[in-house]
Amino acid sequence: MRKVVITDPPRTDLRLVDSLAAYGVATVHEALGRVGYLGTTLRPIQRGVRIAGNAVTALCAPGDNLMIHAAVEQCAPGDLLVVTTTSPCTDGMFGELLATSLRSRGVRGLVIEAGVRDVAELNDMGFPVWSAAVSAQGTVKATAGAVNVPVVVGGGLVRPGDVIVADDDGVMCVPRADAGAAVRASQARTEREEATRAALAGGQLGLDRYDLRPLLRSQGVEYVTAAEYAREGG
Amino acid sequence: MRKVVITDPPRTDLRLVDSLAAYGVATVHEALGRVGYLGTTLRPIQRGVRIAGNAVTALCAPGDNLMIHAAVEQCAPGDLLVVTTTSPCTDGMFGELLATSLRSRGVRGLVIEAGVRDVAELNDMGFPVWSAAVSAQGTVKATAGAVNVPVVVGGGLVRPGDVIVADDDGVMCVPRADAGAAVRASQARTEREEATRAALAGGQLGLDRYDLRPLLRSQGVEYVTAAEYAREGG
Amino acid sequence: MRKVVITDPPRTDLRLVDSLAAYGVATVHEALGRVGYLGTTLRPIQRGVRIAGNAVTALCAPGDNLMIHAAVEQCAPGDLLVVTTTSPCTDGMFGELLATSLRSRGVRGLVIEAGVRDVAELNDMGFPVWSAAVSAQGTVKATAGAVNVPVVVGGGLVRPGDVIVADDDGVMCVPRADAGAAVRASQARTEREEATRAALAGGQLGLDRYDLRPLLRSQGVEYVTAAEYAREGG
Amino acid sequence: MRKVVITDPPRTDLRLVDSLAAYGVATVHEALGRVGYLGTTLRPIQRGVRIAGNAVTALCAPGDNLMIHAAVEQCAPGDLLVVTTTSPCTDGMFGELLATSLRSRGVRGLVIEAGVRDVAELNDMGFPVWSAAVSAQGTVKATAGAVNVPVVVGGGLVRPGDVIVADDDGVMCVPRADAGAAVRASQARTEREEATRAALAGGQLGLDRYDLRPLLRSQGVEYVTAAEYAREGG
Amino acid sequence: MRKVVITDPPRTDLRLVDSLAAYGVATVHEALGRVGYLGTTLRPIQRGVRIAGNAVTALCAPGDNLMIHAAVEQCAPGDLLVVTTTSPCTDGMFGELLATSLRSRGVRGLVIEAGVRDVAELNDMGFPVWSAAVSAQGTVKATAGAVNVPVVVGGGLVRPGDVIVADDDGVMCVPRADAGAAVRASQARTEREEATRAALAGGQLGLDRYDLRPLLRSQGVEYVTAAEYAREGG
Amino acid sequence: MRKVVITDPPRTDLRLVDSLAAYGVATVHEALGRVGYLGTTLRPIQRGVRIAGNAVTALCAPGDNLMIHAAVEQCAPGDLLVVTTTSPCTDGMFGELLATSLRSRGVRGLVIEAGVRDVAELNDMGFPVWSAAVSAQGTVKATAGAVNVPVVVGGGLVRPGDVIVADDDGVMCVPRADAGAAVRASQARTEREEATRAALAGGQLGLDRYDLRPLLRSQGVEYVTAAEYAREGG
Repeated sequence: MRKVVITDPPRTDLRLVDSLAAYGVATVHEALGRVGYLGTTLRPIQRGVRIAGNAVTALCAPGDNLMIHAAVEQCAPGDLLVVTTTSPCTDGMFGELLATSLRSRGVRGLVIEAGVRDVAELNDMGFPVWSAAVSAQGTVKATAGAVNVPVVVGGGLVRPGDVIVADDDGVMCVPRADAGAAVRASQARTEREEATRAALAGGQLGLDRYDLRPLLRSQGVEYVTAAEYAREGG
Repeated sequence: MRKVVITDPPRTDLRLVDSLAAYGVATVHEALGRVGYLGTTLRPIQRGVRIAGNAVTALCAPGDNLMIHAAVEQCAPGDLLVVTTTSPCTDGMFGELLATSLRSRGVRGLVIEAGVRDVAELNDMGFPVWSAAVSAQGTVKATAGAVNVPVVVGGGLVRPGDVIVADDDGVMCVPRADAGAAVRASQARTEREEATRAALAGGQLGLDRYDLRPLLRSQGVEYVTAAEYAREGG
Repeated sequence: MRKVVITDPPRTDLRLVDSLAAYGVATVHEALGRVGYLGTTLRPIQRGVRIAGNAVTALCAPGDNLMIHAAVEQCAPGDLLVVTTTSPCTDGMFGELLATSLRSRGVRGLVIEAGVRDVAELNDMGFPVWSAAVSAQGTVKATAGAVNVPVVVGGGLVRPGDVIVADDDGVMCVPRADAGAAVRASQARTEREEATRAALAGGQLGLDRYDLRPLLRSQGVEYVTAAEYAREGG
Repeated sequence: MRKVVITDPPRTDLRLVDSLAAYGVATVHEALGRVGYLGTTLRPIQRGVRIAGNAVTALCAPGDNLMIHAAVEQCAPGDLLVVTTTSPCTDGMFGELLATSLRSRGVRGLVIEAGVRDVAELNDMGFPVWSAAVSAQGTVKATAGAVNVPVVVGGGLVRPGDVIVADDDGVMCVPRADAGAAVRASQARTEREEATRAALAGGQLGLDRYDLRPLLRSQGVEYVTAAEYAREGG
Repeated sequence: MRKVVITDPPRTDLRLVDSLAAYGVATVHEALGRVGYLGTTLRPIQRGVRIAGNAVTALCAPGDNLMIHAAVEQCAPGDLLVVTTTSPCTDGMFGELLATSLRSRGVRGLVIEAGVRDVAELNDMGFPVWSAAVSAQGTVKATAGAVNVPVVVGGGLVRPGDVIVADDDGVMCVPRADAGAAVRASQARTEREEATRAALAGGQLGLDRYDLRPLLRSQGVEYVTAAEYAREGG
Repeated sequence: MRKVVITDPPRTDLRLVDSLAAYGVATVHEALGRVGYLGTTLRPIQRGVRIAGNAVTALCAPGDNLMIHAAVEQCAPGDLLVVTTTSPCTDGMFGELLATSLRSRGVRGLVIEAGVRDVAELNDMGFPVWSAAVSAQGTVKATAGAVNVPVVVGGGLVRPGDVIVADDDGVMCVPRADAGAAVRASQARTEREEATRAALAGGQLGLDRYDLRPLLRSQGVEYVTAAEYAREGG
């Protein structure tokens, strides 16, 4: 691993970033063709938050948050810090003091594939965090890593300047080059969904709206009564 | 697996269903002789909800929610949809649009041994869900399965028309034939517990109330001081 | 295992206990030299609670809460009950009735490396619980164990009379002999953190405050532009 | 739960059972329409064994093997004992002495959703076991359960007299009523596979043998060179 | 944590240690009253090995094997090295070179609640290892810990000079003070088991040998035919 | 996700690939600077195998092995197939027939972040496989994905033509551009280790060979007798 801090990573236009935040993870993920979701293990510390930001990445040794401190300096307003470790770690690598520091730089939140602590204080501050664990176990500041290199988080690839969208459904990464298209596709999907929502609320069935009955038939699904089913041996 | 939709599953009288909801999972589970609990992995998306309903079941392929759409059509007021997959799956197979559809049919909630998404929207709607995961990862509508066949969920057997009771303690299944007895036993247990609660709140010990001291003696439990314990080599 | 109930375990002065509660798990854990944290699997049933108490310990057979009843009798005001099992168990070994009993004796909370139930009722009561699972599955009262012997909980050793501190960050154990020193060190740390918090909020970087730049240099970390990084083959 | 021992469970003809053993889990599972597989957590203690037997079932309390002893008496030559617990348990509920007892009755093996011990001795005896865990932790004989009732094991339903097939790929359950059809379908599949194996060994592609190229085309899969892919932005 | 290397830990007489090895984990665990088993997560790298040794303990930072090197110096013939980390770690903290070093000092094996690597080479050497993981991920030698202090491994307490017994069933710890009694109890148990084994092999049932029929009766277990069971509603 | 099959992925010179196989995962991982290890969850189906090959990648839908068939056609002698899914999947996506097909094309093995089946047959064939699970659960051939695009496997990035090295220690990925340097560094490391092995076998301590004593001193590690340690309060 090259020990490096990249000082001028690309960033996505904040207007695009803010649009993506408004749509949320599930919608953007659909709009993007169902790629970029960072898995079910990154869970929100706070419920009901929906944000997006430019990824600044930090790659740390397990149990060592030295490179988070190095990453803070590289953060700008509108960024969202993305942290992972070179091997699995549940220690509390991030807490209220680092959140204070990030907030003072205009950073919108944290995604970390490791543990965090000071959960009560983070809640009081309203600083949004998605993490793989909560742990009071402290860390050292001893081993160099890298800032703003591509990292794998939650089984997905995140590059500096990609857009991270996060809410109660988890975290996803929109590649920088795809941000504009993702906004347009999310908008289109949202409009379609509004019509669908109204139809379903009015009692139309998904079977009809999505024209699924022929598919069921073609796959040989039978509609039978309970009595018929029992008679035929279940 | 037979690809089938059973159109007239049995149902339990809603007065029994509603009575069971009032007692909650832990009480009904005790009253039923400690069977039917569907394990620790099905967790509520919302806290503080306590419901019961008639099970309508859907068996899906992993990553494919076609049969949830087929199941919606089979749902009636007072039902509770129970979904599982033929192999383990954490994808977000259910979201706000399906919840809208279920609600329009009078369905009371969802239990799913897979993932759900649109968590914030489900909370806003107040549609109760118990799931094994949260995931924004979308699914397809491509593979047939079955509706209203017996399914295994959370390590337990659920048949259409069984009563599902769900609250913060998890989910349980009361076989349809046992619903009446479960209501009576739950009522009896609730009354006994009220007396016990008052006694314990007043300072009586469980050791005395349940007459456990002879059991401790018969198993050779000694009461010793710390000094005696240390002297005898711990 | 010796089947024993120790009737006069040592206890830590409640003034020390209460001081530790005020600092919280993360601070005390740091102050104590980063030992005693009981791992990431013991999670709070309620959010936003921060307590401390004298450990009374109960060692139970899996699926059997007989010794919790025996332990209740040994509890005094200011205590916190710590329960574990001889092999892993997720059953609901503790619920609202036992909480009522503990509360009537002035016990402050429960830490249990097993399951609990009656979660809604425990929340209504405001009785604080940290557990490894939630489960409605009931238990029996059949097998003897021990009360107030040293136990291993969450990968750490807890002895009767040690101070348990618990909050949203998890649970930790302060050995009785270290309680006074832990208070003093926590106070010192809190004061230092206040100054650091102000500095970071004002924009000072951790890199400078903790003098980490020489460390980065000595480990060969380079600061490069994205263009330079790409040119050198990443 | 009803505490009951059923003394005359149905059994499947051993000629069918033995035929299924010869085909193995993967083939029978396919032949049966991909149902009945008991999941990835039941692993063989010995490698390279392939057996089948009539299910005799035992439902135990966790950490309590009383009902395994009751089940032994109900076993006959050609049976295979299937054990589960009312809540999850990794304790060593079965060891060399019980294996000796089962062997003396002509039982072919054990499937247990809990722990086993005496692994070296079981290997020396050549008694086949599939379990969810290995653990030296002993159990008691204290709590009643049931023998030869339907049980859920590995997420699947097993009824007494169903055929259990087990090998290195895991464990599956063939319902008694389906055993004959499963033998015929397995035989047909085996013959088809032999031809396919020869064709593939000779270099024919699955794409051609299964006629998958039109499917790829219809779903819009493009074949491109690396240069084209890079040019189009990946 | 005190950073300390204890240079003259107590040791158990090797004649006792060797006797315990001969009985194996399951027997000694039973003989000791079912305490001291170090859980199901420590698995053997080699199958079919059964050893015992005097515990020398090392407490390391995660991802850092400095203290293993310090521990090697404290090892003597007949010892068995026991390693754990201050927070969970799967990295490969131990490999063939350290095994070479330990072997040259007469150490009998390794128990480590973390990862190991060079598995093929360890097998070729025949150096016995029980670990929580296998991982090629390397570690550093940077952070001090402790040698020969009490440690918690696999949920159990291990003190220097305790006897570690390990085989295919896992790992257990016999406190030094209990080693003599454990040998005597293991011998007695082995003799009893021999008689039981012969009886069971001859067809006697556990129900009769352990006199379990009255227990089944007292708990209300009924013996019924399948027809009776079906008639009574299962 | 773009549905694409890249037909002419780059490949690494097989002489480099074969050299890396000879060194094995742990050595190459060290030589490469401790990056590229694909985690502890990909385990070998066979023990004692050590191979390397050029990565051909397949990205599949969960429970769907259509793209494995498409990938076979893209394989050439010396390749190693790397398969992952768009969301987690333990189904048996690969078995003996696909192995037969791969072998006929000169493919050296399979790495799959999902399940495999026909384990006994794969062992008989001697076809090397590393997988995240074993499962008899079959899959369909219905959904398009991609072949020879970059994929994330085991938390690491694998691009077509990278070198996969796999043995009992797990799986690692050497970027194509680094293969030559990795061979040279592995050779140098191997030579150094040979000298170290001889020294350690001869009794030299790691503390002296790696000059670790000053580090222990500088971090304040004390060497004390057990009596001193006890006197000072442990």
